[in-house]
Amino acid sequence: MFRPLDEEKVFKDPVHHSIYVQDATIWKLINTPEFQRLRRIRQLGTTYLTFHGAEHSRFSHSLGVYEITRKIINQFERNGYKDWPQGEKMVSLCASLLHDVGHGPFSHAIEQVFDTDHEEWTCAIVLGQTEINRVLREADEQLPQKVASVIRKTYDKPIVVSLVSSQMDADRMDYLLRDAYFTGVNYGTFDLDRILRVLRPHQGRIVVKESGMHAVEDYLMSRYQMYWQIYFHPVTRSSDIILKKIFRRAVELHQSGYRFEFMLGSLKKLLQGELDVEAYLSLDDNAAFTAFGEWAREKDELLSDLCRRFLDRRLYKYVQLEKMDPELVEELRREWVTLGLHPEYHLETDTVVDLPYDLYKPGTEAGASEKPPILLLDDKDQMTEISAKSDIIRSIAGIHRGKYYIYYPEEPLREKADRLKPYTRELLRL
Amino acid sequence: MFRPLDEEKVFKDPVHHSIYVQDATIWKLINTPEFQRLRRIRQLGTTYLTFHGAEHSRFSHSLGVYEITRKIINQFERNGYKDWPQGEKMVSLCASLLHDVGHGPFSHAIEQVFDTDHEEWTCAIVLGQTEINRVLREADEQLPQKVASVIRKTYDKPIVVSLVSSQMDADRMDYLLRDAYFTGVNYGTFDLDRILRVLRPHQGRIVVKESGMHAVEDYLMSRYQMYWQIYFHPVTRSSDIILKKIFRRAVELHQSGYRFEFMLGSLKKLLQGELDVEAYLSLDDNAAFTAFGEWAREKDELLSDLCRRFLDRRLYKYVQLEKMDPELVEELRREWVTLGLHPEYHLETDTVVDLPYDLYKPGTEAGASEKPPILLLDDKDQMTEISAKSDIIRSIAGIHRGKYYIYYPEEPLREKADRLKPYTRELLRL
Amino acid sequence: MFRPLDEEKVFKDPVHHSIYVQDATIWKLINTPEFQRLRRIRQLGTTYLTFHGAEHSRFSHSLGVYEITRKIINQFERNGYKDWPQGEKMVSLCASLLHDVGHGPFSHAIEQVFDTDHEEWTCAIVLGQTEINRVLREADEQLPQKVASVIRKTYDKPIVVSLVSSQMDADRMDYLLRDAYFTGVNYGTFDLDRILRVLRPHQGRIVVKESGMHAVEDYLMSRYQMYWQIYFHPVTRSSDIILKKIFRRAVELHQSGYRFEFMLGSLKKLLQGELDVEAYLSLDDNAAFTAFGEWAREKDELLSDLCRRFLDRRLYKYVQLEKMDPELVEELRREWVTLGLHPEYHLETDTVVDLPYDLYKPGTEAGASEKPPILLLDDKDQMTEISAKSDIIRSIAGIHRGKYYIYYPEEPLREKADRLKPYTRELLRL
Amino acid sequence: MFRPLDEEKVFKDPVHHSIYVQDATIWKLINTPEFQRLRRIRQLGTTYLTFHGAEHSRFSHSLGVYEITRKIINQFERNGYKDWPQGEKMVSLCASLLHDVGHGPFSHAIEQVFDTDHEEWTCAIVLGQTEINRVLREADEQLPQKVASVIRKTYDKPIVVSLVSSQMDADRMDYLLRDAYFTGVNYGTFDLDRILRVLRPHQGRIVVKESGMHAVEDYLMSRYQMYWQIYFHPVTRSSDIILKKIFRRAVELHQSGYRFEFMLGSLKKLLQGELDVEAYLSLDDNAAFTAFGEWAREKDELLSDLCRRFLDRRLYKYVQLEKMDPELVEELRREWVTLGLHPEYHLETDTVVDLPYDLYKPGTEAGASEKPPILLLDDKDQMTEISAKSDIIRSIAGIHRGKYYIYYPEEPLREKADRLKPYTRELLRL
Repeated sequence: MFRPLDEEKVFKDPVHHSIYVQDATIWKLINTPEFQRLRRIRQLGTTYLTFHGAEHSRFSHSLGVYEITRKIINQFERNGYKDWPQGEKMVSLCASLLHDVGHGPFSHAIEQVFDTDHEEWTCAIVLGQTEINRVLREADEQLPQKVASVIRKTYDKPIVVSLVSSQMDADRMDYLLRDAYFTGVNYGTFDLDRILRVLRPHQGRIVVKESGMHAVEDYLMSRYQMYWQIYFHPVTRSSDIILKKIFRRAVELHQSGYRFEFMLGSLKKLLQGELDVEAYLSLDDNAAFTAFGEWAREKDELLSDLCRRFLDRRLYKYVQLEKMDPELVEELRREWVTLGLHPEYHLETDTVVDLPYDLYKPGTEAGASEKPPILLLDDKDQMTEISAKSDIIRSIAGIHRGKYYIYYPEEPLREKADRLKPYTRELLRL
Repeated sequence: MFRPLDEEKVFKDPVHHSIYVQDATIWKLINTPEFQRLRRIRQLGTTYLTFHGAEHSRFSHSLGVYEITRKIINQFERNGYKDWPQGEKMVSLCASLLHDVGHGPFSHAIEQVFDTDHEEWTCAIVLGQTEINRVLREADEQLPQKVASVIRKTYDKPIVVSLVSSQMDADRMDYLLRDAYFTGVNYGTFDLDRILRVLRPHQGRIVVKESGMHAVEDYLMSRYQMYWQIYFHPVTRSSDIILKKIFRRAVELHQSGYRFEFMLGSLKKLLQGELDVEAYLSLDDNAAFTAFGEWAREKDELLSDLCRRFLDRRLYKYVQLEKMDPELVEELRREWVTLGLHPEYHLETDTVVDLPYDLYKPGTEAGASEKPPILLLDDKDQMTEISAKSDIIRSIAGIHRGKYYIYYPEEPLREKADRLKPYTRELLRL
Repeated sequence: MFRPLDEEKVFKDPVHHSIYVQDATIWKLINTPEFQRLRRIRQLGTTYLTFHGAEHSRFSHSLGVYEITRKIINQFERNGYKDWPQGEKMVSLCASLLHDVGHGPFSHAIEQVFDTDHEEWTCAIVLGQTEINRVLREADEQLPQKVASVIRKTYDKPIVVSLVSSQMDADRMDYLLRDAYFTGVNYGTFDLDRILRVLRPHQGRIVVKESGMHAVEDYLMSRYQMYWQIYFHPVTRSSDIILKKIFRRAVELHQSGYRFEFMLGSLKKLLQGELDVEAYLSLDDNAAFTAFGEWAREKDELLSDLCRRFLDRRLYKYVQLEKMDPELVEELRREWVTLGLHPEYHLETDTVVDLPYDLYKPGTEAGASEKPPILLLDDKDQMTEISAKSDIIRSIAGIHRGKYYIYYPEEPLREKADRLKPYTRELLRL
Repeated sequence: MFRPLDEEKVFKDPVHHSIYVQDATIWKLINTPEFQRLRRIRQLGTTYLTFHGAEHSRFSHSLGVYEITRKIINQFERNGYKDWPQGEKMVSLCASLLHDVGHGPFSHAIEQVFDTDHEEWTCAIVLGQTEINRVLREADEQLPQKVASVIRKTYDKPIVVSLVSSQMDADRMDYLLRDAYFTGVNYGTFDLDRILRVLRPHQGRIVVKESGMHAVEDYLMSRYQMYWQIYFHPVTRSSDIILKKIFRRAVELHQSGYRFEFMLGSLKKLLQGELDVEAYLSLDDNAAFTAFGEWAREKDELLSDLCRRFLDRRLYKYVQLEKMDPELVEELRREWVTLGLHPEYHLETDTVVDLPYDLYKPGTEAGASEKPPILLLDDKDQMTEISAKSDIIRSIAGIHRGKYYIYYPEEPLREKADRLKPYTRELLRL
């Protein structure tokens, strides 16, 4: 199934220096329209509005995940580790390269509004009438199904799944390093080379040689810091909120029969909930931005204001609360109405859920529950869950943290500040 | 004119680590819609198709140029150098921040097709009915005119012009470092701190303390390498060629009365040559990409093929020639016609002009001619043109290099390869 | 007291890029023989035998501490923070530059054997008949006393003491970054610029703006990792053990009237416990190494074997124990005697004490007890101990960790392995 | 001949991140006393007096050269290049690891004074009664001879010689990167990974794939900058001059029957010109420094002054001349005598010879003459000397540069300044 290229192809990459493509199938996959489209989807959605360097795309991340996977497997094969199953290299490389191919523009925001799932879209693209599907089948008629089942975590070789999706998979390792590089923070830097060197295939799992425990600690701390400081940054959450409100308003308007001055075919299908693969693939960041630019001139004031805010980065302000207080929120909504503000569009709450619990205690948080723990392998081939040996990891295991915010547009509120209740004024510092 | 912020604002930047904003006017300028729009214009146009990391925008570059200028002036003021004119800090900072605000999508390509000039657009935005203009006037009624004259290099304090536009200005220093960082190459890295430390204001110019000569050599070599390896990379030239052909075809079609299935107001004005500031500002990379995506389904085959190629990165192939040979090109065009190919759209020539001559010998190359040479200042306050003292710079001064390419679409030609003349087949390696 | 140099002096430094000297007194201090001697004392003692890059000296570290202190004070003065006492800059800079000037070769090992204290030596050098004393007095007759009292932490401006000696002082910040750089690990990298930016003088203390909490977390985690992975590395402990045994044996021999083939005047005074400042200053790594090289040919076999081992890096092996077991150790010592091995010289125990407790809970560990906690300053000028706000720091506060090792020479034991008790053989894996 | 270790050994290295040892012979060589001794020889001699970070040893450099060689050969073997001779891996790795094992303290200075040659010492150690010889013979009886002939450049496989000694060998690549890292300059950084990727074995030589030309340009420019800015730095030359004068004076005194208060056996043999391998191996930086420290108290004033200067870094000052003028120098020497200064010890001239000529035009400079040019290999397997294709390299080929200095002790001269001739005073700026 492996068809070596005459000459290996090398991509210059700022994170891994070089990314090596040695197989013709991988090369062809990269050159499909569906994969090239990832150049038009930002890796971190709206984060660039908080950290201006974060303008990188899912294209470079996908290559990075592929490269890490390639290095891991090469190490396994070079050392002849017997627990690494023969013949699983191609499916692993394809799955790691393609795992994000179903992402659309600002995925997380869109998924919440339209209740879609990028993993399902990835499978649809891998299995559908696409160039990717054609290239995979050319290599092996079963390859599309295999890749899709890796994505769905149902592949019958769990070790392949864990390469692409686990507590310390190629995906996470690449995005932490890459997002740290492009944002310019140095929280996300851990010793990738060392981690790759201590990974071992063992009884259907990827485990870590015990001597690599400290490198894993460092990786988990990086992850913790990146989540709280980059991914959960309240300014980014604010731009995500604006974004979701734009889409919500557009759906509302569409459903009420509003006639948009500007519409794209794919967007219309999105609003109608009737997206097919072809339309989905033509949706990208550019389509969204172009629509926002045009909608900024729509006569619906809510929609045009939200679009203008997003493009001009006039985001909602926020205050942090000690805890989420539904009564308070209800009261604010009522107050908003009396001020002529919209109780939903001009107020939003946000609860940022705990992370490090997910780090090491699988099974307790929805979504992370299927991710197995990180296991250490000692020199007697015994496996131990890492928090049993690492003081640091055990310590952060106990951390349960939530942060609670309310978001609101500063400008109309500041004007109306003298009509706000004293409590509200103080709360919002107006 | 300087209005300190209560608390300085800090942008996290991967190149300069931190970018400091201490003045209210600068802060407001950054928050104008016109400046925020730079987030939607890629710094390096189509280069991301060659170096996938090059996805950064003119927004981050503009902040970087501002920051370098700020550091230079701070050093001048801290040391009390008498040749630095009092009161020119604000106009310098504003000009450095705004110098690229007139860039549109893929500027160089568009400028060639439509014969526009981003510096003129910058001045139009600074002087026009824009938020930027309003913020500048709020600080000082004369500020818009001053900033525009710095951009036009006619400002009556030439030292201010040379900060923003010279052989070693804040603009170049930022883009070399930034483009190297995002592409991931390490050619562009020179010792910025050291260079900033040896700059001196002297008789209306920015000169370099002689002890900094080697740092300047290193900077110029970085520049040389960046030009030949990044900016002039033939794959990037190929994508630029596709891009220009898309716009040329669109103009042609528009002029011939073709009815586009998809059009945007601003694009239409562009095609008609009737752009005003407002329309220009709504043109960005997203608008271009969205148009290409829609035009990929237009019935005009030339246009749709070019758009598809651009989006899917199926670029034209190239061969390098010893020298440009107009007769050969004419002959190829004739051959193209006999094959049913378009003699202009399916064939392009490209001459990449020499760089290092520009580096040190001003006045000889059009465009670079107004840029004064780099002067060294010795400890007796004598100024000497740098190539008189630096062997390296004198050496590369003699280099006159051109590279010559022809570009063509591989696929239809490969099919028709057996109908090509033997010479052509060998030339194109088909 | 501040005497600006005509032109500031710049040292190229790999950690801080540049180190700036702007004052004549600082410049003269650096050029004293006593300060230049620090070039001949390794910063990390025997660590270079574990991490070969760790060959840097206390000279570069001392410059680094000075530079960080200079940056902190500059920031305080530039922003005009009123809680920073006027006129304390020079004493702060001198104390930070000179704080390690009393270190001798392999300080920690020598201090344990000879019961000396490098801080006392620092004060003796600052106050004694030295060039350093002369230069300080030239600037201000009181300066030597002031500097010494900062070193002794009795200076009447506690904020000055906390710059040089606290949980997050210039000393620690430099050595973490520097040791990480030279060993080549990337655990020690935290965002120095960010930390410097959030430090504030407040009521006689250096505190941290609350927005900098995550940067402090990162710094403390770096510190934790550096301790366990670099400073407490068992191979380094092994070389320290050899070193201490060399000195112990030399003292023993000297006291017993042994006539050394090779001796240096300063070494003799060390062995006799009669070191004066002049002799102390002539002791450096070179003297120690030269003595070891010569002693490797002494007829005392214990001494020559230990010296040979140290020079050739044939260190003692180690096994880690669950806990320290004095009975076991006693039994091993008896077994050693039956094998003809020395019960003290051929066996050593090592308990590595807990670190992160020291990080945040002052007052509980001897030595660290005088170090005040890290305080966060919120926007209402309230101070809070950092572990009350940081989940991470609170978590690691609970960690109490000790590691227990026994060390022994592999070679003679392996030969005699068949005469060892089965338990001992298994324990030592012989 | 290759004996794989059970588990590969990894050294943490700041330049290459990790250095991998996979073979038992290499591992044993590293652990010989002769190789461990390299930890006690600074890589850059006295350069640490100019760039304080340059305290690294030949030990780490030797490991680095080994690692680069290992990577090159691995690439050759992995790709199955037929021009790389089978079975030459071990001799190549051993030669690259051991090529500097004959260096003594401050080699270049000592070689000039005592007319020795470190390559000859390397061969003497490899072939003599040493542990290194024993380990090599254990692997293959012929190995010592083979390694020595590689060092002497007479080995019958010239491709092996060129790995260790050519215009772009593993030695140079490591020292440029390593010296740049430890000094903290960024001139020496070139893209090692890229260069390693484009090296090809071809007809008994290591050549460079043409696509790697720019990376080679960058490497040569780095080399040029490192020579002029680091290796030829006039302050370092000054400390070398002091050093040579110390040894000259010691020889003079020894020959005149002077009785030193302090002497070491090996030093005595050095002064007598009767060094054997054993004595040579016990000479290291520590021995030299310890002697200088003791000699600083000798009654011979010239010797003690020079030693004091070296230890306290009170180096000779210098002035640069347009060209070397023997008459001027003679006149100064006469003037020195009238002032009571020593005409040789208190005055020195220094001509720093041209470098870049050596870079690409072999055969013209003594010493470099045996180094073959760098050849580019095009895709038709044609080889071309690089300067025929690279404008940059051709340009710097024409540079012939010399720098001329005189060195003198500032202090006694400044006191006697009023007795100096006016010309001399102006020349020396006294």
